[in-house]
Amino acid sequence: MDFASYISGLVDGEGCFSVSFNFREKLKLKIEVRPSFSISQNKRNLSILKEVKEFFGCGSIRFSKKDQTYKYEVRSISDLKKKIIPHFKKFPLKTTKNKDFKEFSEICTFIFETKHRNKVYLENIIERAYEMNESGKRKYQKAKLLSVLDKMKI
Amino acid sequence: MDFASYISGLVDGEGCFSVSFNFREKLKLKIEVRPSFSISQNKRNLSILKEVKEFFGCGSIRFSKKDQTYKYEVRSISDLKKKIIPHFKKFPLKTTKNKDFKEFSEICTFIFETKHRNKVYLENIIERAYEMNESGKRKYQKAKLLSVLDKMKI
Repeated sequence: MDFASYISGLVDGEGCFSVSFNFREKLKLKIEVRPSFSISQNKRNLSILKEVKEFFGCGSIRFSKKDQTYKYEVRSISDLKKKIIPHFKKFPLKTTKNKDFKEFSEICTFIFETKHRNKVYLENIIERAYEMNESGKRKYQKAKLLSVLDKMKI
Repeated sequence: MDFASYISGLVDGEGCFSVSFNFREKLKLKIEVRPSFSISQNKRNLSILKEVKEFFGCGSIRFSKKDQTYKYEVRSISDLKKKIIPHFKKFPLKTTKNKDFKEFSEICTFIFETKHRNKVYLENIIERAYEMNESGKRKYQKAKLLSVLDKMKI
């Protein structure tokens, strides 16, 4: 068994690459960008998430009382750039999730290079992020984020 | 990428081992046993199911209009015994689905050896099958099947 290949199969089924946004007054552009890689599992399957966490050497596992699931999640941009993204470049996903991954990877590169502090790049990141995970729920509508950004005189 | 290991990861997320039952008057015990291994995917991801089908060299792919999904499925007991089960023995599942797989594997062995035509074995198969896939829907209640079997004078 090659565990690296196994993980790509598991993530094609159960993994999620997403970029969410929050309003933060203290930020120059008022909008915080939060990339996240996660895998959710029924609480019976905590052990596989522990194996994945050990394999990547980063991230954390949280329990959601509401869904009765455990979620392994990596939010650190440094870990995403250095550990998560290289893995899925070497062991590519085979479903349409690979399209999400590619967008995610480019957005993380922008953030890693602090380009998300530039209005034009942040607009581009918002547009791209809303193309991902078709069926996902969103805290804010894209138009709301873009209109806030549009008012910035930067 | 080791595709065999990838498949085990994918199946831990999206695969299903199940044993269903139907009433058939022409059968001695009136109950037909139908083992099935399947993977369902959104219609955008038909290509990965085609790769899996080619890898195993058996099974078929059907489209469900209702769910808008494609399902790769293997029902042939010979293919299950010779192609599917050996794969998951060599590349074991890592979630609780492996427990389902082990029950499935033993039930398939019984069927392969035609033991399901014996009342005691068929009772055992029904009991085991209803332990699998906790959350799954069933056409018939277990008690209904067992009561039909109980009336057989064999």
